[in-house]
Amino acid sequence: MTDRDEVLKQNAAFYDAFRRLDLDAMADVWSQTEADVCIHPGWPILRGWAEVEQSWRGIFEGAGYMRVETNEVQVVVTGDVAHVTCMEGVYCVHEGMTVQGSIAATNLFHRHGDSWKLVLHHGSPIGATAAGVPPDDN
Amino acid sequence: MTDRDEVLKQNAAFYDAFRRLDLDAMADVWSQTEADVCIHPGWPILRGWAEVEQSWRGIFEGAGYMRVETNEVQVVVTGDVAHVTCMEGVYCVHEGMTVQGSIAATNLFHRHGDSWKLVLHHGSPIGATAAGVPPDDN
Repeated sequence: MTDRDEVLKQNAAFYDAFRRLDLDAMADVWSQTEADVCIHPGWPILRGWAEVEQSWRGIFEGAGYMRVETNEVQVVVTGDVAHVTCMEGVYCVHEGMTVQGSIAATNLFHRHGDSWKLVLHHGSPIGATAAGVPPDDN
Repeated sequence: MTDRDEVLKQNAAFYDAFRRLDLDAMADVWSQTEADVCIHPGWPILRGWAEVEQSWRGIFEGAGYMRVETNEVQVVVTGDVAHVTCMEGVYCVHEGMTVQGSIAATNLFHRHGDSWKLVLHHGSPIGATAAGVPPDDN
């Protein structure tokens, strides 16, 4: 498997953990170090695994249903660093409210031994949120 | 000068070009390749230097006055790649309207010969709730 394929696999694992609301799987994707950075849409910058983990815990606990689809996925590998940019289509039921929208994401991975670990996730809201129809399942 | 200092200098050059509305100086910071990616707050993903340059041209032409301050600047250098995360305080007069706000930014640099070039800028508005979930109340 090429570095590029490994990174894409790890990027997919991130979104699998996200849509399954699986904190253990999410933790496994991250480097779990002080260097971890996460910027959720509309949130301030979270630094260090403790803060990042706490944010995912809160999101997962509040979400009753989560669907996340990705497209326009592009990966660039440069030595022991890789960055992925993509669009996320998110449809979620959070504390009884339906939230839906498009998010532009940057995911940065560092090579740790035999695997690639997420060290930065940055998601930002794109345009206006559409009401009504959830994105198609693919 | 250490790699870290060089990256911080180039990051500062990016914001200098931004606040001076100087397209030539902005161009000089970027790698100016097909790999360039720029995500302005609320915009879709722009890919390739041609699209990225056009976006800055439009922003600079529409802006009568621009103030950009940075804080919480953190840099991580890993071989020939460096990423900077920071908060931007932006105050601008754009086509007669005043726009002001806080932006969380990720800036990714690649080493090109003797210099560091920007290959990705991702800025997202902070405080606006978005697709995704609201900030933690804890």
